[in-house]
Amino acid sequence: MANSFGKLYTLTTFGESHGEAIGGIIDGCPAGVKLDLIAIQNEMDRRKPGQSKIVTQRKEPDEIQFLSGIFEGKTTGASIGFIIKNVHQRSKDYSHIKDSYRPSHADYTYDKKYGNRDYRGGGRTSARETANWVVGGAVAKQVIPEIKINAFTSSVGDIFMEKPYQDVDFTKIENNIVRCPDENSAKKMIARIEEIKKQGDTIGGTITCVIQNVPVGLGEPIFDKLHAQLGKAMLSINAVKGFEYGSGFCGARMKGSEHNDIFNADGSTKSNLSGGIQGGISNGMDIYFRVAFKPVATIMKLQSTIDKDGNVLEMQGKGRHDPCVVPRAVPIVEALAAMVLTDFMLLNN
Amino acid sequence: MANSFGKLYTLTTFGESHGEAIGGIIDGCPAGVKLDLIAIQNEMDRRKPGQSKIVTQRKEPDEIQFLSGIFEGKTTGASIGFIIKNVHQRSKDYSHIKDSYRPSHADYTYDKKYGNRDYRGGGRTSARETANWVVGGAVAKQVIPEIKINAFTSSVGDIFMEKPYQDVDFTKIENNIVRCPDENSAKKMIARIEEIKKQGDTIGGTITCVIQNVPVGLGEPIFDKLHAQLGKAMLSINAVKGFEYGSGFCGARMKGSEHNDIFNADGSTKSNLSGGIQGGISNGMDIYFRVAFKPVATIMKLQSTIDKDGNVLEMQGKGRHDPCVVPRAVPIVEALAAMVLTDFMLLNN
Amino acid sequence: MANSFGKLYTLTTFGESHGEAIGGIIDGCPAGVKLDLIAIQNEMDRRKPGQSKIVTQRKEPDEIQFLSGIFEGKTTGASIGFIIKNVHQRSKDYSHIKDSYRPSHADYTYDKKYGNRDYRGGGRTSARETANWVVGGAVAKQVIPEIKINAFTSSVGDIFMEKPYQDVDFTKIENNIVRCPDENSAKKMIARIEEIKKQGDTIGGTITCVIQNVPVGLGEPIFDKLHAQLGKAMLSINAVKGFEYGSGFCGARMKGSEHNDIFNADGSTKSNLSGGIQGGISNGMDIYFRVAFKPVATIMKLQSTIDKDGNVLEMQGKGRHDPCVVPRAVPIVEALAAMVLTDFMLLNN
Amino acid sequence: MANSFGKLYTLTTFGESHGEAIGGIIDGCPAGVKLDLIAIQNEMDRRKPGQSKIVTQRKEPDEIQFLSGIFEGKTTGASIGFIIKNVHQRSKDYSHIKDSYRPSHADYTYDKKYGNRDYRGGGRTSARETANWVVGGAVAKQVIPEIKINAFTSSVGDIFMEKPYQDVDFTKIENNIVRCPDENSAKKMIARIEEIKKQGDTIGGTITCVIQNVPVGLGEPIFDKLHAQLGKAMLSINAVKGFEYGSGFCGARMKGSEHNDIFNADGSTKSNLSGGIQGGISNGMDIYFRVAFKPVATIMKLQSTIDKDGNVLEMQGKGRHDPCVVPRAVPIVEALAAMVLTDFMLLNN
Repeated sequence: MANSFGKLYTLTTFGESHGEAIGGIIDGCPAGVKLDLIAIQNEMDRRKPGQSKIVTQRKEPDEIQFLSGIFEGKTTGASIGFIIKNVHQRSKDYSHIKDSYRPSHADYTYDKKYGNRDYRGGGRTSARETANWVVGGAVAKQVIPEIKINAFTSSVGDIFMEKPYQDVDFTKIENNIVRCPDENSAKKMIARIEEIKKQGDTIGGTITCVIQNVPVGLGEPIFDKLHAQLGKAMLSINAVKGFEYGSGFCGARMKGSEHNDIFNADGSTKSNLSGGIQGGISNGMDIYFRVAFKPVATIMKLQSTIDKDGNVLEMQGKGRHDPCVVPRAVPIVEALAAMVLTDFMLLNN
Repeated sequence: MANSFGKLYTLTTFGESHGEAIGGIIDGCPAGVKLDLIAIQNEMDRRKPGQSKIVTQRKEPDEIQFLSGIFEGKTTGASIGFIIKNVHQRSKDYSHIKDSYRPSHADYTYDKKYGNRDYRGGGRTSARETANWVVGGAVAKQVIPEIKINAFTSSVGDIFMEKPYQDVDFTKIENNIVRCPDENSAKKMIARIEEIKKQGDTIGGTITCVIQNVPVGLGEPIFDKLHAQLGKAMLSINAVKGFEYGSGFCGARMKGSEHNDIFNADGSTKSNLSGGIQGGISNGMDIYFRVAFKPVATIMKLQSTIDKDGNVLEMQGKGRHDPCVVPRAVPIVEALAAMVLTDFMLLNN
Repeated sequence: MANSFGKLYTLTTFGESHGEAIGGIIDGCPAGVKLDLIAIQNEMDRRKPGQSKIVTQRKEPDEIQFLSGIFEGKTTGASIGFIIKNVHQRSKDYSHIKDSYRPSHADYTYDKKYGNRDYRGGGRTSARETANWVVGGAVAKQVIPEIKINAFTSSVGDIFMEKPYQDVDFTKIENNIVRCPDENSAKKMIARIEEIKKQGDTIGGTITCVIQNVPVGLGEPIFDKLHAQLGKAMLSINAVKGFEYGSGFCGARMKGSEHNDIFNADGSTKSNLSGGIQGGISNGMDIYFRVAFKPVATIMKLQSTIDKDGNVLEMQGKGRHDPCVVPRAVPIVEALAAMVLTDFMLLNN
Repeated sequence: MANSFGKLYTLTTFGESHGEAIGGIIDGCPAGVKLDLIAIQNEMDRRKPGQSKIVTQRKEPDEIQFLSGIFEGKTTGASIGFIIKNVHQRSKDYSHIKDSYRPSHADYTYDKKYGNRDYRGGGRTSARETANWVVGGAVAKQVIPEIKINAFTSSVGDIFMEKPYQDVDFTKIENNIVRCPDENSAKKMIARIEEIKKQGDTIGGTITCVIQNVPVGLGEPIFDKLHAQLGKAMLSINAVKGFEYGSGFCGARMKGSEHNDIFNADGSTKSNLSGGIQGGISNGMDIYFRVAFKPVATIMKLQSTIDKDGNVLEMQGKGRHDPCVVPRAVPIVEALAAMVLTDFMLLNN
């Protein structure tokens, strides 16, 4: 009931980080789409652990196995089942948290909600789940190839990208390990993450996503506004605390005479504080939004916490965790955006 | 398809500001709830136009007529149909926008999406629709009376409430016309709105909402996270550009060692940067979030725009519009929050 | 949660027979459909009580009032709200059943499920609800004018229409009050109903529906098979006990070599035991199905029953009820079929 | 979009008979249910091919592999992913139907709908899909162990079970290979199937299902009536042409005075023509319904058909097919019934 996403193009998922495999089912993918499987695996590789020195050093190959819905290289219109085997299962790593609640994790809420929890690697709360989403998004991107979706790291802690998105080249996003298209800002961000990592601490950040070449008319006017669905999607990502599009929270400080986007004769607008969406419906201008990620909760420092019986104890993170989740979250943001856009494109037909 | 909200407790709506009536159907309301109809009408009055000098001077009594689902003062479990008659229809007011697109309104996107539009008062895009939402929320509040939901104006333009929410008294929210529980801040906000109104301009602002006494365990872990549903709900309100909960965008600048909420022995936490939600599930602490509203697009100043044929022309707002939407949006934020919480309470049973 | 029908073209309804009005909201109706309101009211008139000597003699004008979603004679793409006032409310008629359970009615199950019931005219269980469905279907018919939907009475008690549907003229359905296109059979059916009515009894019957000019490819292969949705729709009508399509229950007695429909060169089939659907998907041949209605439970004869406290008592039907529900159910069957087909047509775009 | 079933307890599936595996995801299963995996596999074995001389002689072990949602023998509340490997893939068997349409199969409709088809073993149309449903149902049965669900073969061709269900012992259903609890009738049915098989032909039949110990109050009154959901579920099974519950089509020939179920003082009824459901809601009596299956379309006799280009040709079934689908469909009927009941039990909480 809560493991499905989308209305016409839907992704339903399963899997815990320490089970045999995770996976999902894509339903509603149109028939006849030629799938580039290498492009899909590339998206997986952008998300996978161990890809650089500033992310977790766990190794997971994250190889997708498609089990149905594809025949002779094309989608058939049938549901697409896939699994991703969990290669790197080290259950013993997690014995120390079996009966304790890690601060600012979901251990406590899961235990209270379900009466039991799969404590191995966070069970279903593990961000490993997002590997499934990247599959759903990578397929979606191929359903709507005309729409360009680019996300990038726009801040790490107090270090913000120094240029507006219009002034950077999105082809440079993958040029550095923090996924910021402005080289100068990227260097500072990487240095900041390395410093934090040495401290055994973690740090938050933001991702900006720009969606271009969207036809006019996507989105539904009342409860399925285009930006409301994008917002819900982004707020589903682990660690996300906020979402804004167009002028966002800055817009709340502005006057109408400053904020209104004046039309050109062709229906485009001179400014784009609306963020490409008016009344919940795309207007053909760039859609852009920003997503806030809190710092990862697992830190290598000693913290006070409690166990199931309310005993206070000290706990320290073990294993290999991300000092900053943002670089690996970039493809996740894109994947969810791609699924939302595909859903609306199919609804609009 | 896009006019329904909720999963078990659902609201489906209809209506244009210049039709005969707007209305809706509440489905999934449990049987046996004693309804206080005066309390419901009170919520309507908090939203209605003409209530103070800083909002639009249109007059609409906004009287709800319930048509079904209530018998001998109690809900029967059947769907609850209601209508709100449109008393104040002045179609002639809108003739000047029949063939033109107001900047930063939905006129252009509607016309392109549907090929026609009901230009009278914005048709279905009118914020009049939110009167239906207030009905849905007012009933919801009575389904979950134990949960306390308080929203208030936390900023108008650059004027922010000067105290954290923990230091104010929510019973004072209705003491002033801008709905800010801190009197000192309220005065400044009101003065700012009056000044803007004199300029024929409009101004944005933010609303903060605090939800208290929520049981542990509401929310679904993957795609229907409690905050994701709250975010989607808020992003459905006209003029909203952003949503953040707990530490929000500030959290993205913090370190894990600063951000983690350390447990007390009873499972409550010493700090609450999580905003009452961990892993998408309520943890029993206060849930709080902030919503950003852009300035109203209709201003009394002359602006350049285009008509259907791409001719550039000048346009000036007519009629009586809100200089700042935030005071009247406070009950709307509460209403949507109440519906989301009711839905999760029913799911959790 | 249970008052909505459809996926893209949806109808959500409310109303009790003895409230002020019933009504509904049609969502997902495409923009730009020119609505013939007289044709819609005609469908209402086919269903309304008091239309002939063989139906209930209650008088309800059943005038639809559309409140939104239509502008200058065309649909706007916005949700279409409508109400039907209840003119004929005689609450006193029902006092005798306030605390008793009528046999084979839903009084007992409602009371146990909801803990209270609106005993006036059956409350939400009243077949008056189906007036809402006829509105939804009448609009749907105008969305898909190319598809021809004809239902008719195919049996009353033991009297079956004497010809296969291929041998009758659907334009004659409305020529007689029982709505059977074969005049000879119609006369016998009418006589049977009159006889039953004199006995103070009621009688069951069946309706056959034929859907023609359906494009190939409607229906989804696994859980939303075209016939499964039609079946669910028909089983939603009060008093329906069975549904079969194509060869139906007869098909269960046949051999494969008898039952298979052999193709013509153009893809049409020589026989049509499949009933126009193969693998859940329309094949372009006539879709036909049959719906079984039990006899109306309210009879004018004395019956034993119980009250809320389990006391056995005698009860006799009062008021004006249908001796046979089938003639008035014909437009209801068509309406639901039209909504199902419209939904699949929109999904297929 | 069409590969999901249920509202709170949902099953989403994928898989073609000739891919690597089929499988599914169960969502909404409550946490803490102790799963008897052997009982689940037993249900699979009741459906699997090759189990007796009167069913297809293909061999598929149909071993379920659960991949998530179960920890230490209990459900965790997380989604339950599973796969069933396809051991018996013999693609070459199907080369003769690659470009031809088998009569009364879904080849033609699939090809027209999707523009391509996976011709290996029918692709997604294969009844192999129902193995997934049996998993969903077998888990569901363990969620609602108090409810007793028994289906059995009630007719094969013209041979009907000679006793009413009240006079047979459901524990005898598995005593014979046709799954009819009346030994005498079973013998005749088996002989009939063997005879038909020798002819290279196939035969239809019916399954009756009885659900006992259902609490009063399951089902929703308007569009999600308990029997409407059961009907939709059964009509989803390959080869099903009809559904009736309680008095069914016989009820359409009866008078109200004969059909009404008179109450006992305790709320139970003396007769049960209602079939345990009144107004769409269970009344605590036995729920029973009957499902009609057409004869399997693949016969070993020569038939005329067409290819993609409209050329008429002769075709003969190859391989190992069921002469009568009914014995293997018994556990499928139970599985779907179990999922429907579980869904309503969860909704009713």
